[in-house]
Amino acid sequence: MNRIITIGREFGSGGRELGHRLAEMMKVAYYDREIVSEIAKRTSLSEAYVQQIVERRPVVAFPIHVGRSFYPMLNPMWDQGQTVYQEQHRLIREMAQKSDCVIVGRCADYILRELKPFRIFVYADMDSRIARCRERGEDAGHLDNGETMTDKELKRRITEVDRNRAKYYEFYTGQTWGERLNYDLCLNTSAADLAKSASAIARLFE
Amino acid sequence: MNRIITIGREFGSGGRELGHRLAEMMKVAYYDREIVSEIAKRTSLSEAYVQQIVERRPVVAFPIHVGRSFYPMLNPMWDQGQTVYQEQHRLIREMAQKSDCVIVGRCADYILRELKPFRIFVYADMDSRIARCRERGEDAGHLDNGETMTDKELKRRITEVDRNRAKYYEFYTGQTWGERLNYDLCLNTSAADLAKSASAIARLFE
Repeated sequence: MNRIITIGREFGSGGRELGHRLAEMMKVAYYDREIVSEIAKRTSLSEAYVQQIVERRPVVAFPIHVGRSFYPMLNPMWDQGQTVYQEQHRLIREMAQKSDCVIVGRCADYILRELKPFRIFVYADMDSRIARCRERGEDAGHLDNGETMTDKELKRRITEVDRNRAKYYEFYTGQTWGERLNYDLCLNTSAADLAKSASAIARLFE
Repeated sequence: MNRIITIGREFGSGGRELGHRLAEMMKVAYYDREIVSEIAKRTSLSEAYVQQIVERRPVVAFPIHVGRSFYPMLNPMWDQGQTVYQEQHRLIREMAQKSDCVIVGRCADYILRELKPFRIFVYADMDSRIARCRERGEDAGHLDNGETMTDKELKRRITEVDRNRAKYYEFYTGQTWGERLNYDLCLNTSAADLAKSASAIARLFE
């Protein structure tokens, strides 16, 4: 059994932590933000910009008034989105061919479908996602000015991130994000112990 | 951690086999058809009749023309459906309070919600469900006259059983059958090794 594991996850559900623990336990490579850094290097775009592109579905910006004929494919925003996606695609395939690994997000389940990865989807109820965002600190629970978000603001943020993930996934795969038949295992982390969950999943590969 | 596990499952997905293996591995009680036999005993209805009731959502049969006032709750079909459900409800609670166990189907996830069971949903793609029905033999892949079903007939049967399960579940729980947030773990058995899966799940309770 190959040991390529992809993890799709709702924002705030702990998918990244699960992936990290699983990779450690199984002693395989773990790829997540590393991918963004590498793409930035290869495309000479900034990491922040690449991050922004891979978090949103590409938007074809058609000018409303055009004084001359135009080619939407020459739209530089669209072009960069495509370049980043293609680079990401190539990179994910390279990495998976090189060694066993856990890859978080990035449509890796679809990109690697010929390698038959084990596809996990991680989800949780809204309350525990809000709580996890707060615990995790980082920028997840804060507004741009550094103020702490209210539960309502945080919920809106979580919903928005997920909506973007869903659109991005659908755009590039033609599949529905989170639809159970696209995954081998869906894990609700609301009441789960992530260390135990990782250990249980690792047993599937022993 | 209590060790009460409930398993909802699509028809032909191997949920029963998974439950059986899990109960054996964890050395806890396993309840499935035993429940029907016990209800039949307690209500003096035949097992076949009880089975039929618990596989279908209750239907309130309103007479179209009535020459006199009537009380739908006195409809004997409805009454028996309610009696069977109530008996099943009582029985499942009794069993779970008596000892750790695995319970397959029967809205047990909802009935036992106060005991916080570990709720599994088992599913698979249509092709592997058809294949599993054929392997399993029994009556699953045969028409009433004993002839083997075509794939199309089998698919129709699988879809119908699932539709009834979904309606039954929704009627008694007010929840959506198979909706991931109602479960702690959803397992796709299309390509899964059920022995390994059971062993992995058992690790969650070690």
